[in-house]
Formats: sequence, C-alpha cells, structure tokens
Amino acid sequence: MRAEELIRKKRDAGALTREETFFLIREHARDAVPDYQMSAWLMAVCWRGMTAEETADLTEAMLRSGETLDLSDLPGQKVDKHSTGGVGDKTSLVVAPVAAAAGLVVPMISGRGLGHTGGTLDKLEAIPGFNVRLSLADFRRALAEVGCALIGQTEEIAPADRKLYALRDVTATVESIPLITASILSKKLAEGIDALVLDVKVGSGAFMKSLAEARKLAESMRAIGTRMGKRVVALLTNMDQPLGGAVGNALEVAEAVETLKGSGPEDLRALCRELAAWMLLLGGAASNLEKGRERFDELIRSGAAAERFRQIIRRQGGDPRVVDDPRRLPQARQRKDFLAPAGGYLARLDAERLGRAAMALGAGRARVEDAVDPAVGLVLRKKAGDRVEPKEPLATLYYNDERLLAEAEARLDGAFTLAPASSPPAPLILETLA
Amino acid sequence: MRAEELIRKKRDAGALTREETFFLIREHARDAVPDYQMSAWLMAVCWRGMTAEETADLTEAMLRSGETLDLSDLPGQKVDKHSTGGVGDKTSLVVAPVAAAAGLVVPMISGRGLGHTGGTLDKLEAIPGFNVRLSLADFRRALAEVGCALIGQTEEIAPADRKLYALRDVTATVESIPLITASILSKKLAEGIDALVLDVKVGSGAFMKSLAEARKLAESMRAIGTRMGKRVVALLTNMDQPLGGAVGNALEVAEAVETLKGSGPEDLRALCRELAAWMLLLGGAASNLEKGRERFDELIRSGAAAERFRQIIRRQGGDPRVVDDPRRLPQARQRKDFLAPAGGYLARLDAERLGRAAMALGAGRARVEDAVDPAVGLVLRKKAGDRVEPKEPLATLYYNDERLLAEAEARLDGAFTLAPASSPPAPLILETLA
Repeated sequence: MRAEELIRKKRDAGALTREETFFLIREHARDAVPDYQMSAWLMAVCWRGMTAEETADLTEAMLRSGETLDLSDLPGQKVDKHSTGGVGDKTSLVVAPVAAAAGLVVPMISGRGLGHTGGTLDKLEAIPGFNVRLSLADFRRALAEVGCALIGQTEEIAPADRKLYALRDVTATVESIPLITASILSKKLAEGIDALVLDVKVGSGAFMKSLAEARKLAESMRAIGTRMGKRVVALLTNMDQPLGGAVGNALEVAEAVETLKGSGPEDLRALCRELAAWMLLLGGAASNLEKGRERFDELIRSGAAAERFRQIIRRQGGDPRVVDDPRRLPQARQRKDFLAPAGGYLARLDAERLGRAAMALGAGRARVEDAVDPAVGLVLRKKAGDRVEPKEPLATLYYNDERLLAEAEARLDGAFTLAPASSPPAPLILETLA
Repeated sequence: MRAEELIRKKRDAGALTREETFFLIREHARDAVPDYQMSAWLMAVCWRGMTAEETADLTEAMLRSGETLDLSDLPGQKVDKHSTGGVGDKTSLVVAPVAAAAGLVVPMISGRGLGHTGGTLDKLEAIPGFNVRLSLADFRRALAEVGCALIGQTEEIAPADRKLYALRDVTATVESIPLITASILSKKLAEGIDALVLDVKVGSGAFMKSLAEARKLAESMRAIGTRMGKRVVALLTNMDQPLGGAVGNALEVAEAVETLKGSGPEDLRALCRELAAWMLLLGGAASNLEKGRERFDELIRSGAAAERFRQIIRRQGGDPRVVDDPRRLPQARQRKDFLAPAGGYLARLDAERLGRAAMALGAGRARVEDAVDPAVGLVLRKKAGDRVEPKEPLATLYYNDERLLAEAEARLDGAFTLAPASSPPAPLILETLA
C-alpha cells in the first residue's frame, strides 16, 4: 500500500477502505508516512469529505493508536459531556459533580483554552493545588473513589490524533467535519464511556458560526458515536454571547460553584440542567428527561452536588474550601467597570470579542506554550435583552497588569451593541439531536 | 506573512497576491516553509485552481528562483518546442536541427523519460558520446556556434520548481493545470526564448486523456506565456497510438534521422513539419505557415537539416556518423516479431501499453534512479487503420535480455485491437491554438 495512491484516491473523491485508513494513521504515527503526504491527504479530505464508514474507521484507527480505558469493573454507567468550545463555558464544572452525585461514573478528559475560547483544565488549575495530570492508573482509582475525575489528555491516549492535530493546526485543515468528528470521538471513546452528551456551540463565539454547520457536525458525531456502540445525544446551543457572566478562569470557577449551590446566572443554570438531565437519562439515572431535570434540582438543593465537587477537588489535590469561600481562589489586584456609552437595550454581545478581551488581560493564550493568569478576566453585568442606563456598567474587568488594560478595553468597545428597543434574545438551546 | 494563512486563503477559494505567491515559493525553496505546509497548499490548488494572474506569478516566482539565460546578444530569434510527453515522440530530434538550419537559435532544455513516456535526453544519450550535461556557459557557447544545443535541466534553472515537483510527485498533486503550466513555463522561459511551440498530447498514451483537459492546459500555457511577453502557439496532437514506429531510444534516434533525411513514417514527418513550420513562423524565418512548411521540406531535401544535426552531435561530443550509418547506434542482440493472432483491420493501438512494453524490455524507467538500455524497444509494423493478415507481424521487439521478453509480450497482447472493417484513423493534429 502506498500513501501516494491513497492521497490520489481521496483527491479523486474516492472512499478509502478500512485497511487503507488504518494504514495511513498507523504509518503516520510511526513516521513511516511523512507529514508532507499526510497534509496533502488532510487537504483532500477537507475538499472531498469522508463517508460515515471512513469517518468511523478514522476514529477507530486513532482510538487504537493508544491506550483505552476499560472501566467495566466499576459499577454504574460511564457518561461524559463534551463541548466544542465557547466563551464562559464552565458547564463541565457543574454537570460532572452532579452526574457523579447521581451515581454515574464521569471520566472526563479535557483540553486547555486556545485563542478566545477557554478550556476546562485552565479553569480547574485556578483552584489552588488542583492536579490535572493524573496517570491513567490514578485516574481510574479516582473514578472508583469519587465517581468523577477531570484530567488532561495523556501521552497514552490517541497519540495518532495528537500528531495529526498538530499537523492540521499548521496546514489550515482543522475545519473539516469528519476530521473534527474523529478527533473528538477518538479521545472521548478512549475514556471507556457508555454514553456521551455533546454540546455543539453555535455563534460568533464558537468554532461553528452557523446553525447549518453546527448541525452537520452534531449529526456526524452522533452518527459515528452511535455506530461505535455508544449512546450519543447532541445539543446545539447558542454561543453568540458568553455563557453566564464570568470569562476568566478563577472567575468562572466561582460562578460554577454558585451554580452548584443553587444560584448563579440563569442561562448557565438552564444549560447545566439540560446537559445533566441528558447525562442522567443516557446513564440510566433518570427514566425520562423531566425526571433528569428534577434530579438535577434535588442534587443542587440538597448540597449533594457541591459536596461531590469538594470530594473531586480533594481527590485531585486541590483546596475544597473554595466551594465555601470563593475568596480562596486567586484574586486579581485591580478591577474596573466598563460603562455603557449610552442608554438603551443590549441587542448583541460579541462572544468572540469578549473572549479576546479576557485573553488580552492574560486569561487565555494566543499560543499553546503561553501561560495564563488564573485571576484575571471579566464579569458581564448585562446580557442580551437587558435594559441599560447611560454610564451603567456593562462589565467589570479584573486585572493585574495595568498595561494590558488598554487592549482589553479597546476590544470591549466593539463587543456591545445597544438598540433603542428591546428584542427577545435568541433561545439558549437551539436544537436537540436525540 | 504566515504560510498557514496562505493555505487557508487558497482552501477558501481565494486568490493569492503576487507577494504571497513569491513568499511561498521563496520560503519553501530555502526550507523556511516546510514541505508539509507546501503540500497542503498544493492540494488546495488542485481543489480551487488559480487565476491567470496567480499562475503567472507562480511561474515568475519559480523562474526567478534560479538563473535565466540572456541570449539577446546572439543574432536570430530564440525559439523552442515543448511536448507534454508521449510514446515514440522523437520530434525534438527533427525540429531542433531544422529550426537551427533555418537561422533560429534553439536553446532546448529537456527531460528524461519516466513511466511509459520517453524523454529526449535518454534518446540523445543513445548516440555514442553525446553529452547532455553542458554547463550553462557551455550551452550558450554551443548555441552561438551551431544555433542549437540540447541539454538536461541544470541545478541553476528554476530550483524552486525542481523542489516543488519532487513534492508534487509524492503527494498526488501533479495533475493541476496551473501547477503544470507554471512548472513547464518557468523552465522554458529560463532558456531566454522569444517564442515557444507547445505540443500538447491527447490520448491513451498522454498525460491528458481527453481533448477538453488538453485544451485547458494548452490555453493556460498559451495565456501565461503570452502574458509573460512570449509568442506561444499550442498544437493539440493525437497520442492514442505512438508517434511513428519506433519506441525505444536508439531505435527512435534512427527513425528521427530517417525523417531528417526525407523518409521516415508519415505521421512523424507530418507532425515535425507542422511543429517546425510554427517555429519558423514565430521566429520570423517564414512569413506564413505554408511558407514554413515549404522551408521545412527544402531543409530536409537539401540535406541542411541532417547536416545541422551532425554539427549539433559533434558539438556535444557525440559521434555524428550515426546520421549516415544508424548501425553505429547501440544495437540489441536479439529481435522477435509479435504476430497478429488473426486478420482484420487494426482499429486501435494502445500507446500506453506499447510504451510499457518497451519499458519492460529496459527502454524506460519505473523510477527516476533506474538505468535504461539504449538499444532495446520495439518498432511498430502496422498502425491504426492498416490491413493485417493472420500471423503478420504487428511489431518487432528488440531486446538484450530474454527474461524480460515475457512481460513485454504480455503487455503487447492487450495493446492491439483488430476489427473486421476499416475505419478512418483519428486526425493527428486535433487543434491549433494560435
């Protein structure tokens, strides 16, 4: 089998056989197929797409390039939630403890933030002492002990995907639905899960800017996950404005904790409730969706969810007292309100610009190797549809370095659109593919 | 400027600016843009194509990556002919001496054969002593002395194209009209020519299998060449069957010499006459095409063309006596006729299979590093449209190694199609773009 022939086949709109796909992934992983052939094939995939069968083969080839967890000896269904990434999305910190408190096992392997979007690992690391680098053996022990653990991708998980992703990143071949599908699913299926709830973000702050694109990705991930024997549900959710109010790592942890304790922003709470209800339903901890929602409410009201979060934090070396006293999280030295230039109704918040404003303060990274400042970021004081008086604060900036403020404020300037009349905000949950 | 952004732009069907194209080619040539980004861009070009402006920029960027000859101090117009490659195509060996004998300067930089197609350099090297590796300085001196020299691509000519072509060859990105256009023209324009006659082959033995494809390539090369200030004419010619009878290096030289001396196969002579007439017209050595044809006939009849070929051979270290005594060319030790299994009319000869049969005997190379046997090959005894008696020879095989015969004969088996009735063969010259 020759890589060149497989590139040609894809270039000419053919479908690779299972053996051919496995050959490419295996040989690339061991450097026998060079990057320059792989990137030509990747661009041909962006051009021609892949059949469902090819996408499933690719997912499996990447999955099998590394270790996969077998959690079948642990009691309870293994369920995870994955988001395609947005601004202010701290739902994992809420739904993982809730699902674990309901008796499910939640083996969550997450990523870091890049560009304007945040990452669960960076948020968790804002908790003093929290260690996201457990070995797979320790990850498994933590799951047995507290029902949930949250770690970063290890060397052992889908190494072929890691190598391929690094190549896609520098060859403009990230934006391909079958490639995204296989990359996400190969890592998620390595967790040894039975079911997966996908939160596919749509809008200015998301990777998928249109509903049609997001729907295609959701359908692809659902089809391939189902084909590989998993129960998969996908929610398409609005990312035109940030989720909740906080954008920035420690600020988001604090907001997630509020939500776990029954308060927190309405939109964040509503989305966490829906995602958790689906996790419970797919994992057999609720007999229908409405019962799943009620169970969410109970676990919040009773304090069981917050208590489970304390246990998770403690098990991973973090300070569980942040759940009771958010001032134990890193605090920015300074804050400044960003004021509305005029009055009216807040018609639009640009999630991407707001994400980039927080990033400018040090909350995110432009390049993978950049460090983040866990304390900084911003908290929205108004959301889409809200009435605003002139000079009323739209957001509060939390910062440590005065010199970074100007760029953040410049980005905020274009992020809010005021209108003379109120219009109803777009729904948060746009579609559910179940 | 970042390569990744330029790949993305092309992927999204954008057109690169002149600066962007020059950046990519320059930085790739000096290894600052890696092969894996370049191959993704190449595949994106296969997908999205290029505007005429982009193709001209690419041609110029590759041209300027190396040395270009300035032949303006030599008297006479500088005219070359380029063929996209076929089976049995020995026209260069005829038209170059003819054009030089007519007073033009013919600075011909040629290639080697690969796969089923032959290459001018391999044919020339079948002439004992002939040296195709002149330095550019010696090339220029030879042009001043005898009006024509035929050499291989040197290190100094379009090095960026050489690097890019090697990458295209292993990433299934050869088949792109703008990339082919830029690759051919960058090398041809480096020769310092004023005019170029293109012979774009169409058919089973050619790179372009359909007339529509070939026309696109011809139009592209003509448009870009013209844009770059050259007079360019393109002929689309039939390559369903080999040109002439001989396929194999020394055998083809012998046939070219016959043609230079006024005999030789009818189709070969007709095509050489037409190509030479266009060269003379574009170079100002004939006032119209018909006069160009008449001049061709005269230069053949008078012996001036054959004499010029002797001079070219002598100047490049070869034995000019091959023109008078073809037995001085390498001779195969054995020969064998390939007989018609039945009688009828020869409806079709598959040029690619015939090329591969000659290759199987050692006349061509499967890989760039393979050696060729100059003596071996085959000579067709019948061409399309001819009447054939049962057991009459269709071709004669010339070989040195008995063990290679079986494969060659097997390939010949499928190469001839007999029909009960005669049908007129396709015209040799399909279209002229002038």
